Amino acid sequence: MRDRDRKPNYRPSGQRGPERGSRESGRRPPWRGREGAGEDTVILYGWHTVTAALANPKRRIRKLLLTENAARRLAEESIESRVTPEIVRPHLIDQRLGPDAVHQGLLAEADPLASPGIDALSQEGIVLVLDQITDPHNVGAIMRSAAAFAVKAIVTTARHSPEATGVLAKSASGALELVPLVSVQNLARALTEMNERGFLTVGLDSQGHENLDAVALRQPLALVLGAEGKGLRQLTRETCGVVARLDMPGQIKSLNVSNAAVLALYIGASKLNLMG
Amino acid sequence: MRDRDRKPNYRPSGQRGPERGSRESGRRPPWRGREGAGEDTVILYGWHTVTAALANPKRRIRKLLLTENAARRLAEESIESRVTPEIVRPHLIDQRLGPDAVHQGLLAEADPLASPGIDALSQEGIVLVLDQITDPHNVGAIMRSAAAFAVKAIVTTARHSPEATGVLAKSASGALELVPLVSVQNLARALTEMNERGFLTVGLDSQGHENLDAVALRQPLALVLGAEGKGLRQLTRETCGVVARLDMPGQIKSLNVSNAAVLALYIGASKLNLMG
Repeated sequence: MRDRDRKPNYRPSGQRGPERGSRESGRRPPWRGREGAGEDTVILYGWHTVTAALANPKRRIRKLLLTENAARRLAEESIESRVTPEIVRPHLIDQRLGPDAVHQGLLAEADPLASPGIDALSQEGIVLVLDQITDPHNVGAIMRSAAAFAVKAIVTTARHSPEATGVLAKSASGALELVPLVSVQNLARALTEMNERGFLTVGLDSQGHENLDAVALRQPLALVLGAEGKGLRQLTRETCGVVARLDMPGQIKSLNVSNAAVLALYIGASKLNLMG
Repeated sequence: MRDRDRKPNYRPSGQRGPERGSRESGRRPPWRGREGAGEDTVILYGWHTVTAALANPKRRIRKLLLTENAARRLAEESIESRVTPEIVRPHLIDQRLGPDAVHQGLLAEADPLASPGIDALSQEGIVLVLDQITDPHNVGAIMRSAAAFAVKAIVTTARHSPEATGVLAKSASGALELVPLVSVQNLARALTEMNERGFLTVGLDSQGHENLDAVALRQPLALVLGAEGKGLRQLTRETCGVVARLDMPGQIKSLNVSNAAVLALYIGASKLNLMG
């Protein structure tokens, strides 16, 4: 099949931006078409996201678009751009990302980072496991909190997870470069392997048997979070060593998933004396 | 000026949904035009959001659109609809909200709830204060966490805050009906009044003098959060009794604002023995 025979799966710019196209739908984001950036290119935008990528020697940057202001700010902060940037008008970046993306004048095209295997997971500290959480804003916020709590890795399913690009990368605010993403085909199998490797795997579920605060935690610890609404899938729940809930005093008993994640991380890190 | 001379400030449905039009921009959401629902009508959609509104005797429901499935589910759970619902096809609700809104077959038009004054705030427990946080997803998630932690009220600025409708209401997952929203013209003046009424006002800021965990907290407690990027405005910071930070062990030192809020709530509620 020749390139021009392929039906492009992106939309014309200006009609839909990354905030719209990918939110909660799990659909392929419009900027990941086969034309333009290409199949294996990720899009990074925003100050924290792009400068963190520039600071990561493992991240191959293919192309860097900067506004004059952004280029000046990088120079003032003595940040090396690694590739020769194209200086562009803000409007051009708006066109690429849609009008609602807060890009701050920086857009990079880069290679995705390599995904380590379960066998490479640290035997210390905390790992997060995400069971088909599809909203890229939520996954990005979770990655950011993971980096704040020195989480060793995030395990996600290859399917039903947003790609590590665009809105997710922006919401992660640089955390993509700090927390390895382990992508697995079968989450129950990955959890079984983690159990065998000595992890305490704790699923978070409002129907959990114990309050997380009361669970005897130990390292290496895996905290497992399910999607909003659906929660943990049955096989995921059954494969966890413990299923715990987060007790709260108010009338609403469930949190936004990224809020639940940060709370579980705080409780876990505090109980394991990992707060530094 | 006659109605038909007014320029409508909504957009044709199908081009932009609520997720897109309002995200991070602080712009007027497209469904709050002068035509159709009207100036003082809020739009509530999604199972938790609409059923919580139906359960709130203070919420006046003007109109209720249900799909057949949603009507059946309400009947099965013996939830009174209060007004005679219009049974519609899902597509019609999609058209109203845009294709990315997860409405689950329920859409209500309702009156906004009344905003109590600072003088009506409880002298017990925790109040949240939001300093120009504009993203409706974040404010909604914060409201949901506030309801989970039995927060007494949320104080916001009348300007530079998203309206309590649409995406915010959906993200709040019913919390709009549980946590009073106090809307003030001048936040520094409101904080001064709270200080005079005996509140301990604690601003959260990564440059804070003390770790929140180490601050001697007492009731009534107000936790004050600023917008992402900008943080607390200078006058807000100066008016807080204490400015505290959230210490975390990782390389990233700031969280998504709703993540910071839930962590501050957990720490505050735990230290004040409010966890129930």
